[in-house]
Amino acid sequence: MKRFLVISSDGHAGLLPGEYRPYVEAKYRDAFDEALKLQIAQTKETEKMFLVDEINQKWRKGHEYELTGAWDHDARMKVCDEDGIAAEILFPDGITEMNTPPFGAGIGLSTRGADPELQWAGARAHNRWISEFCQMAPERRCGVAVVPALWDIDEAIKEVKWARQQGLRSIMIPVQWGQFPAYHNPRYDPLWAVCEDLEMVVNYHSGPADQEDYFGVWPPKPGDDVTRGAMGIYVSEVLWFVARPLTFLIWGGVFEQFPRLKVSITEGMADWVPHHMAILDRHFEHSPTEQKLGDYISHLTMKPSDYFRRNVRVGSMVTRAEAEDRDRIGIKNIMWGSDYPHPEGSWPKTGTKMEAALRGLPEGDLENILGRNALEWYGFDEEKLASIVDCIGPTSDRFAALD
Amino acid sequence: MKRFLVISSDGHAGLLPGEYRPYVEAKYRDAFDEALKLQIAQTKETEKMFLVDEINQKWRKGHEYELTGAWDHDARMKVCDEDGIAAEILFPDGITEMNTPPFGAGIGLSTRGADPELQWAGARAHNRWISEFCQMAPERRCGVAVVPALWDIDEAIKEVKWARQQGLRSIMIPVQWGQFPAYHNPRYDPLWAVCEDLEMVVNYHSGPADQEDYFGVWPPKPGDDVTRGAMGIYVSEVLWFVARPLTFLIWGGVFEQFPRLKVSITEGMADWVPHHMAILDRHFEHSPTEQKLGDYISHLTMKPSDYFRRNVRVGSMVTRAEAEDRDRIGIKNIMWGSDYPHPEGSWPKTGTKMEAALRGLPEGDLENILGRNALEWYGFDEEKLASIVDCIGPTSDRFAALD
Repeated sequence: MKRFLVISSDGHAGLLPGEYRPYVEAKYRDAFDEALKLQIAQTKETEKMFLVDEINQKWRKGHEYELTGAWDHDARMKVCDEDGIAAEILFPDGITEMNTPPFGAGIGLSTRGADPELQWAGARAHNRWISEFCQMAPERRCGVAVVPALWDIDEAIKEVKWARQQGLRSIMIPVQWGQFPAYHNPRYDPLWAVCEDLEMVVNYHSGPADQEDYFGVWPPKPGDDVTRGAMGIYVSEVLWFVARPLTFLIWGGVFEQFPRLKVSITEGMADWVPHHMAILDRHFEHSPTEQKLGDYISHLTMKPSDYFRRNVRVGSMVTRAEAEDRDRIGIKNIMWGSDYPHPEGSWPKTGTKMEAALRGLPEGDLENILGRNALEWYGFDEEKLASIVDCIGPTSDRFAALD
Repeated sequence: MKRFLVISSDGHAGLLPGEYRPYVEAKYRDAFDEALKLQIAQTKETEKMFLVDEINQKWRKGHEYELTGAWDHDARMKVCDEDGIAAEILFPDGITEMNTPPFGAGIGLSTRGADPELQWAGARAHNRWISEFCQMAPERRCGVAVVPALWDIDEAIKEVKWARQQGLRSIMIPVQWGQFPAYHNPRYDPLWAVCEDLEMVVNYHSGPADQEDYFGVWPPKPGDDVTRGAMGIYVSEVLWFVARPLTFLIWGGVFEQFPRLKVSITEGMADWVPHHMAILDRHFEHSPTEQKLGDYISHLTMKPSDYFRRNVRVGSMVTRAEAEDRDRIGIKNIMWGSDYPHPEGSWPKTGTKMEAALRGLPEGDLENILGRNALEWYGFDEEKLASIVDCIGPTSDRFAALD
């Protein structure tokens, strides 16, 4: 029976906050110690406010060991093997509210209230650790280097090169540009150039949105006047924000200028792709009415959705509706992911959820979505993964159509 | 043969810039004269940059008289009669680049670089004029008062009351809140309360977006380094921004608290409605995973799409695809509009475009989309319009299905 190669395009790994200390450059350790106290206190407060404690405790119960896979090699191998996952892309923030890199260098990466030098120190600390963690199973792990790219492009480029030398094959940059020029601006061209040359995938991971607009202040503290329904607005807009950079990259001609650049949108779902690309394509037709707005298309040689097909892949859990809409989204553009060890991910019911979403799809489509698309995108070695797949890969009978 | 009542939910009217002078309070006339020079110079520059002059000239050729309908009663009556339009909702900015109210009080209404006192003076000047213009055909015109609501809620409420006394039945407020709290904030409750009480429809009209992010500076001047493709980004995002306030109003419980409040989204298309409402409804289900984010739903008694159905209508041109998707969008939520005299509107081919979009729909659906929905929403008097419809309303044979 055939076994499928499964690569999770959305995994998270990170140390418990205090454990990052040895990875932080010595000169930042005093600042680290100070920030740590604040971070722990704030995490607890936020948890009280939003992350209803009982729910988390209940969810964690009985999985205490498996959750240490956020930072523990053996625990992670056990979970991946049980889930049939041969390889993973590893983002920061092992367990959302506990394992984030220091100085705001996690998946919420933003310039808001951040100190550039410290944020870089936090990012480098995580990058040092994640490259060690990947080296413990290099054929099965593709670490994502955190690159706070907005402050200084030269520094970002230096980090990309360093990360590549450590064997990392992907970077994560801020979803929102804050006070800096947006991603269509030529100031970022040297960054795209080096990522294209070194085949470093550029990731945008879901998380940041206009939190201040929703909550008034962010992060809120007990006693703050958090506006009613704010979290509903956040969850309703956050996926728009993670896909937003594409609009800038496409119209800015970034994919025209850097045709081999690879961009991933992670944990942003995929159901928006057909509608959003239809909007962009419609404007690319540049009707007589739109011609009065001047020329904004002649620097592009393909229509927006063609750049999407070539230069962009979307990763994380796949819904049944998305699987059914795979041809319009792009069968090469969808990469399944488990989001382990986040509670909103498929684990600890990965098998069931994966089957429910993908059951009945043709074998070739399953191959692409489950592993091949991520394999190509992130440059894993298929041969090295083959023997692992033979042992742990989910068998094709599990995806047979019901009835 | 049946004739349909047609109400354009999206018309524009405005004076040539200099003509607003007598409508501006005396104490602001020096400022007006200063600003006028700048405005005209800037319009010309922007036109050179974006509004390709030949296209506009070509489009206007042969329609010189009809275009004066932006401010001339007789010309407007002629156009409406020829288009079969019995009544109209009248927004500012008669001809996009020429007839905008002073001091930035047009459809681009924004706090960006604005002087609150002057913007109010500009808004009031336009409101005085539009109420006069409506009084020339009160049964056929519903003017929209410009209300720069963000600066001061009490002042906004005063203007709403004044406008209602003048016979205006709708206001337009900024699409973006800039440095102010967003529209879910309780500071706006007194404004919603008065709009609900006085049955004043609150309009958001398409136009504003994150222009500085696209262009670097806005408005750009010749010689500015306008980033490549910026206009493509603008046209791709502008419709998201005009619908955005709904997300805040719904989750903020505004429609729960003010069940009779009426909100229109104008020239924002309608094709996004099913997908966007599905996102909101999905989060309203508040899955166990989302419960860890705390309670953001218990202040609502209906699901988000139910508030949309009850409290929101979308207006302007209707595409064939939207007409076919009318049941998912909501047959009571779509209001056809011509956007006259804007070049992106249906005029001067209103008949042809209207038929192409709506042909073959059941009579009841046509009635709703073409006129009844706007009639109810904006409080027109059906009896007074009946004799006009008898003369000019498009006949049902024009909407017969082809073959």
